[in-house]
Amino acid sequence: MRMYDIIMKKRNGGELTTEEINFFIKGYTKGEIPDYQVSALMMAIYFQKMNKRETAELTKAMVESGDIIDLSAIEGIKVDKHSTGGVGDTTTLVLGPIVSAAGVPVAKMSGRGLGHTGGTIDKLESFTGFNVEMPIERFIRNVNEKKIAIGGQTANLAPADKKLYSLRDVTATVDNMSLIAASIMSKKIASGADAIVLDVKTGSGAFMKDEESSFKLAEEMVDIGTHVGRNTVAVVTDMDEPLGFAVGNALEVIEAIDTLKGKGPKDLTELCLTLGAYMLILGEKAKSFEEARGILEEIISSGKGIEKLKVLVEAQGGNPDFVDDISLFPKAKVVKKVLAARTGYVKAIKADDIGIAALVLGAGRETKESKVDLAVGVVLHKKIGDFVNEGEAIATIHSNCEEKTLQSEEIIQKAYGIVDEEVLTKPLIKGIVTKDGTIKF
Amino acid sequence: MRMYDIIMKKRNGGELTTEEINFFIKGYTKGEIPDYQVSALMMAIYFQKMNKRETAELTKAMVESGDIIDLSAIEGIKVDKHSTGGVGDTTTLVLGPIVSAAGVPVAKMSGRGLGHTGGTIDKLESFTGFNVEMPIERFIRNVNEKKIAIGGQTANLAPADKKLYSLRDVTATVDNMSLIAASIMSKKIASGADAIVLDVKTGSGAFMKDEESSFKLAEEMVDIGTHVGRNTVAVVTDMDEPLGFAVGNALEVIEAIDTLKGKGPKDLTELCLTLGAYMLILGEKAKSFEEARGILEEIISSGKGIEKLKVLVEAQGGNPDFVDDISLFPKAKVVKKVLAARTGYVKAIKADDIGIAALVLGAGRETKESKVDLAVGVVLHKKIGDFVNEGEAIATIHSNCEEKTLQSEEIIQKAYGIVDEEVLTKPLIKGIVTKDGTIKF
Repeated sequence: MRMYDIIMKKRNGGELTTEEINFFIKGYTKGEIPDYQVSALMMAIYFQKMNKRETAELTKAMVESGDIIDLSAIEGIKVDKHSTGGVGDTTTLVLGPIVSAAGVPVAKMSGRGLGHTGGTIDKLESFTGFNVEMPIERFIRNVNEKKIAIGGQTANLAPADKKLYSLRDVTATVDNMSLIAASIMSKKIASGADAIVLDVKTGSGAFMKDEESSFKLAEEMVDIGTHVGRNTVAVVTDMDEPLGFAVGNALEVIEAIDTLKGKGPKDLTELCLTLGAYMLILGEKAKSFEEARGILEEIISSGKGIEKLKVLVEAQGGNPDFVDDISLFPKAKVVKKVLAARTGYVKAIKADDIGIAALVLGAGRETKESKVDLAVGVVLHKKIGDFVNEGEAIATIHSNCEEKTLQSEEIIQKAYGIVDEEVLTKPLIKGIVTKDGTIKF
Repeated sequence: MRMYDIIMKKRNGGELTTEEINFFIKGYTKGEIPDYQVSALMMAIYFQKMNKRETAELTKAMVESGDIIDLSAIEGIKVDKHSTGGVGDTTTLVLGPIVSAAGVPVAKMSGRGLGHTGGTIDKLESFTGFNVEMPIERFIRNVNEKKIAIGGQTANLAPADKKLYSLRDVTATVDNMSLIAASIMSKKIASGADAIVLDVKTGSGAFMKDEESSFKLAEEMVDIGTHVGRNTVAVVTDMDEPLGFAVGNALEVIEAIDTLKGKGPKDLTELCLTLGAYMLILGEKAKSFEEARGILEEIISSGKGIEKLKVLVEAQGGNPDFVDDISLFPKAKVVKKVLAARTGYVKAIKADDIGIAALVLGAGRETKESKVDLAVGVVLHKKIGDFVNEGEAIATIHSNCEEKTLQSEEIIQKAYGIVDEEVLTKPLIKGIVTKDGTIKF
């Protein structure tokens, strides 16, 4: 078998066999197939596409290129959640406790990664003493005993995907649905979950800017999950403005606590109840969406959700008192209000720019070596559709540096679009994709 | 400027600017742009194509990536000829002398290259003592004094093309008309000729297998020539069977001598008269095709052509007596006839396979390090349309090794297709492409 023939076949519109896909992924992972042949193949795939079978086989080959986490020692159906990434997305911190409280084992391993804010494990480190490093045996014991554990990702998951993504990133071959779907799903599948709920973001702050491509990506991923025997559901959700109000690490944890106490932002609460409901269904703790949602609402109103967060924090060495006394969280030195430049209705909030306003303050990582400042970030006060008077606060900046505060403020001002006419808000949940089909709301 | 943006632009169907093309070719030649980005661009070009302006600018950029030979010290219009490559193509050895005898200065620099047989300079080395290595000053003086010189190519012509071609060759991005045309023309333009006659082969033994793509390539090359101010004419000619009878080095030289004496194969003679006529027109030694052809026919019948070959051989240290006594050429030890397996008409002779039958004997180079055996090769006795009786010789093998003889014989047998029905022969010259348009015969 020769890589040349594989490139030629795809270039000419052919369907790659499983053997050809495995040959290419194995050879590339080992360094036997050079980058320049792989980038040519990626460009050929960009033009000629891959069908469902090829996409699933590519995903499988990437899964098999590295470690596959074995969670079989955990009792029950392990349901994982994955978001395609947005701004101010605090869902995991809310979802973990409520789903766990409903009896679905939560065995979450997260990376730190790059982004506007830290990852879930960075955020959890806002609880003094919280520890994500533990041997797999202890992680599994924690899940079995407490029904929840969140650990740092140290395994070598889907190294082929990592290598391929780096190459695609510099050769203008990222935006192909099959390749994007295979990339996301390979890591999720290697993580060992039995079932997967995907939160596919759509809008200006998401990777997919329009609904059509977001649904397409959701369908591709559900197809892959189905093909490899993992029950997968995707929820397509709005990311035209940041989710909730807080964008930062400790700030988002505080928002998650509010939400678990039933006092969270409407959109964040709605998203968590929706994603959580599908997790309960896949985890066989409810038969219908209504039943599942009812269970989760009860978990929040009864305080079982917030109690579960305390259990998690305590089990991993953190101080659970923070939950009831949020003044204990790391605090920024400068707290500055951003005032509306005019009166009117909020028409748009560029989510990406709000993310950058937080990143500038130090809330996220620009490079792998960056240190995350847990205290800093941005809290919005006005969201799309809200009325605001000139001089009223639209956001608050939490910062540890005067210069960065000014920079961040300027970005926030530009991110807000305020108009005279009343603005209608759009629904948060755009639709659901399951193996049985797509429903658009 | 970033290579990433150039790839993205072409991927999305955009037209590259001259600056972008220069940036890419300069950066790639210097090694600043990696292979993996260039192969992605080549694949994007394969799908999105390049227009005439982009193709011409790419050619110019490749010309400027290396040496450009200055032939301005040679009096008259220097007309070069280039063939896209076939089997048994001895035209240069005939064309050089007759065109030179008509007053067009022939300043030919050839490489050795790879192929079924050696290149023109390998073939000329069949004349004992013939020397192709000489300083450029002496080369130019020879052309001015004798109107002909054939030298070895040592300049660093179009290194960007060399690098690009090697990459395209392993990434399935060779077959794009613009890239093929730019590759050929960059080397020709860098060689310093004022005008160019192209012999674009078409058929089973050619790079372009069908007439449509051969004409397309011819048009692309003529467009490039026109764009860079080199008067260019392309002749599309048949390569469904080998040209002439001989495929080998000394064997082809002997055939060229026969042709210069007016006793050559019909097809080779016809091709030389046609290509030569256009060279005379571009060299302003004739006004019409008929006039030019008449001049060349007279040059052959009067013996001026064969005399010019002697002048060339003597001027470069070779023994001109070989021309009148072909027994002086290197001779193979084994001479074996290949006999027809059945009675009938020759329907097809796979030109590529006849080339391989010669290559197997040692007539050409499989790698750059291979040594060419000047004596060996294949001489055909029957061509398409000929009638042959079972047991009659269809070809003769000239070999220096028994084992290779058998191998070669087997290939020749398979290359011949013999049928019961009479076979009509096809015209050799398929059409002409000039800057004023295309004429198909």
